[in-house]
Amino acid sequence: MQQIERELQQRTIQSKRTAGGGLVDRRDFLTRGIALTGGALAGGFAGGSAARAAESLVSGVSPWQQIPGQPFRTYGQPSRFEEATKRAFFQPFGAIAPGTGSSFTPLQSLDGIITPNGLHFERHHNGVPDIDPAQHRLLIHGLVKRPLFFNVQALLRYPMTSRICFIECGGNSFRNTLPQPPQVTCGMIHGLLSCSEWTGVPVATLLAEAGVDPKGKWILAEGADSASMSRSIPLEKVLDDALIALFQNGEAVRPEQGYPMRLLLPGWLGNMSIKWLRRIKVTDGPTHTRDETSHYTDLMPNGKARQFTFVMGVKSVITHPSGGMSMQGPGFYEISGLAWTGAGRITKVEVSADGGTSWAEAALQEPVLRQSLTRFRIPWDWKGGPALLQSRATDDQGRVQETHKDWATHYSPANRYHCNAIQTWSVTAEGSIHNVYL
Amino acid sequence: MQQIERELQQRTIQSKRTAGGGLVDRRDFLTRGIALTGGALAGGFAGGSAARAAESLVSGVSPWQQIPGQPFRTYGQPSRFEEATKRAFFQPFGAIAPGTGSSFTPLQSLDGIITPNGLHFERHHNGVPDIDPAQHRLLIHGLVKRPLFFNVQALLRYPMTSRICFIECGGNSFRNTLPQPPQVTCGMIHGLLSCSEWTGVPVATLLAEAGVDPKGKWILAEGADSASMSRSIPLEKVLDDALIALFQNGEAVRPEQGYPMRLLLPGWLGNMSIKWLRRIKVTDGPTHTRDETSHYTDLMPNGKARQFTFVMGVKSVITHPSGGMSMQGPGFYEISGLAWTGAGRITKVEVSADGGTSWAEAALQEPVLRQSLTRFRIPWDWKGGPALLQSRATDDQGRVQETHKDWATHYSPANRYHCNAIQTWSVTAEGSIHNVYL
Repeated sequence: MQQIERELQQRTIQSKRTAGGGLVDRRDFLTRGIALTGGALAGGFAGGSAARAAESLVSGVSPWQQIPGQPFRTYGQPSRFEEATKRAFFQPFGAIAPGTGSSFTPLQSLDGIITPNGLHFERHHNGVPDIDPAQHRLLIHGLVKRPLFFNVQALLRYPMTSRICFIECGGNSFRNTLPQPPQVTCGMIHGLLSCSEWTGVPVATLLAEAGVDPKGKWILAEGADSASMSRSIPLEKVLDDALIALFQNGEAVRPEQGYPMRLLLPGWLGNMSIKWLRRIKVTDGPTHTRDETSHYTDLMPNGKARQFTFVMGVKSVITHPSGGMSMQGPGFYEISGLAWTGAGRITKVEVSADGGTSWAEAALQEPVLRQSLTRFRIPWDWKGGPALLQSRATDDQGRVQETHKDWATHYSPANRYHCNAIQTWSVTAEGSIHNVYL
Repeated sequence: MQQIERELQQRTIQSKRTAGGGLVDRRDFLTRGIALTGGALAGGFAGGSAARAAESLVSGVSPWQQIPGQPFRTYGQPSRFEEATKRAFFQPFGAIAPGTGSSFTPLQSLDGIITPNGLHFERHHNGVPDIDPAQHRLLIHGLVKRPLFFNVQALLRYPMTSRICFIECGGNSFRNTLPQPPQVTCGMIHGLLSCSEWTGVPVATLLAEAGVDPKGKWILAEGADSASMSRSIPLEKVLDDALIALFQNGEAVRPEQGYPMRLLLPGWLGNMSIKWLRRIKVTDGPTHTRDETSHYTDLMPNGKARQFTFVMGVKSVITHPSGGMSMQGPGFYEISGLAWTGAGRITKVEVSADGGTSWAEAALQEPVLRQSLTRFRIPWDWKGGPALLQSRATDDQGRVQETHKDWATHYSPANRYHCNAIQTWSVTAEGSIHNVYL
């Protein structure tokens, strides 16, 4: 045992795969032969009684094994024991319509990178329209040789592309821009973030059919909700990788995500991936709509507002353990979380258990895809003392997450957008977990 | 126009990316400048009236834009206009319990590779148990140094792995083993097949803790349903890549897929990925349970039954256009489908529009993952005549799908398992689509 400890200390020096506060190399974790949590659980089996205890478990039949189970369902739902795994709402101060606000993906209860469709975050400016797809049209007009419109049936004949990518609201993590760190779940802070496999028609294909006028440099995209959400988008991005998404994780796009069709701009501010898309107008410059002047601008320290911050920052968050959870006593845990960047691919996630004094490199779950969430994991041997858990992501553009303190210097204290500061979870000696700013 | 036709003919000779019956190179499809379906739709905009018609579409406001939309939901559901996208049931002849049989993923209505959790196929032998996760235990015993058991909370502390992989029932496509080709949807033939991002604990980690006796060569895995589904699995596979899956597309595994935990054996017969997993017993050989002797064996031409066909075959199917659909008139369509193999990775999918006389290579959607569904796509210029659509997959073990006729020679006519024959969809000149055997 002492030898293992010595080896572990040596590794801390030699390798970035370990760090202070108990961050362990994944290979050690799997080969050290330490009972992870099984110790107490296996206790009843010690010695000669083990075989008898196992036999009693085998023959002891649970209530649900004694009756026929439930029949088939045309469309499945989660277990009734998972009711706590749900989206939480937020209605901004002054909102008068019940469909104005947002709901958050419960990141702390999920694992992997895909967000199930029922838990994809929502941000609506006047609720979710109930659109009949047979009546819906997408219009392409403005600076084009011939205006066109499309219904769903027509679009389904076009060449499709699928990609797994995240959507993050520009206001995600706004709670961490408030003066005091909010004591809510990880999802209620960072859960205006979800990741799906989106499938749809490249907008470039439709614009090629319409024939873009050489004067066309931007588009205006407008939704068919009663808020008529409208944003200006540079044509270059649209021609590069924008999709008219018709499918989300295999099935038709959900009403809350834009049924029957949404614009998808991988890696860009979520608000610009216009839901319930009804028209694309090619223009010679930005339209300066209400939604890009009165909202979704970044307040600078000098009192000015910066417009058109399109590409989402490099960011990560530890999803478990995280705020509001409780440790279950000292021993091994897997620290796990999500990293992402609007610019491209995540290349590295480092984790600290001592508030940034030392860092160990986490394992990244393959496949690591462009503009997708990336799951990271690292084993942690919690000794039972206070700890400050952090994660710090780096992307293939060399961008690195900053501390909360450094991030805040770039903005006015009133700014609520684009917070990609390092999240710190403070673990007390008793095992409760809190949100702190460092 | 004639020149384009000439180029297309040349390409048919030079490149495997085109073939007879109108199969087109994807690059041509995107650059030929032919109105795909837009022709008729754009008709109203011809000439000087185009701008006025567009203006009328912009100002014409739909009913759902005139009222506030629906408020937030804690757990989202599909649009009410998508009610037709559902699982279809099958109850075997003689089944007396309502939960005995299967339900099929509606492959023909989906795109991408992920199956949404609500539409994952089901195969139950006595219904879906309603398991309280706080009461559920996983026992590991048999030829181990110390028996262990685990509850969900304990497993959540272990190092996790995520992977996107398919599960296919051994009886998938059984309808195509019947004497006459069934005239039902693609999903009702091939939809005992789904693909999810699964996350869980490698079984190897837990077995290392239990300490496998050198005499241990197989395991028995048993479910906590009232059918006590039980299968024997070689230890080598279990130690290689088996998971105790706790999450499915991000959220807790659904009841129909084994809540709170299932065994996952990537690429192997779906039935062996035991749902509601309650114990793993290490044994020195196969246990020859009811479920691997009376079921899930392959009937040979000589009247014998072959046991233990574990690895799923190389296979593909065109999901649209497919059986029961109707073409919407001549012109361009995207032919799209799914390919998979239990052995590894899909390396090639060829598509024929003339019943196998000529083949063109389809594009494979990235990422192409091991033991995952792979989406393939190829553009098709349907001239309005009869066509016979087929797809033929090849995997990285060099395995290639056979014709229905050739496949049938390996089995007794009574065999219903492991049908991976090439699917043929017959398109009539009128545009109706039927299932045929070739």
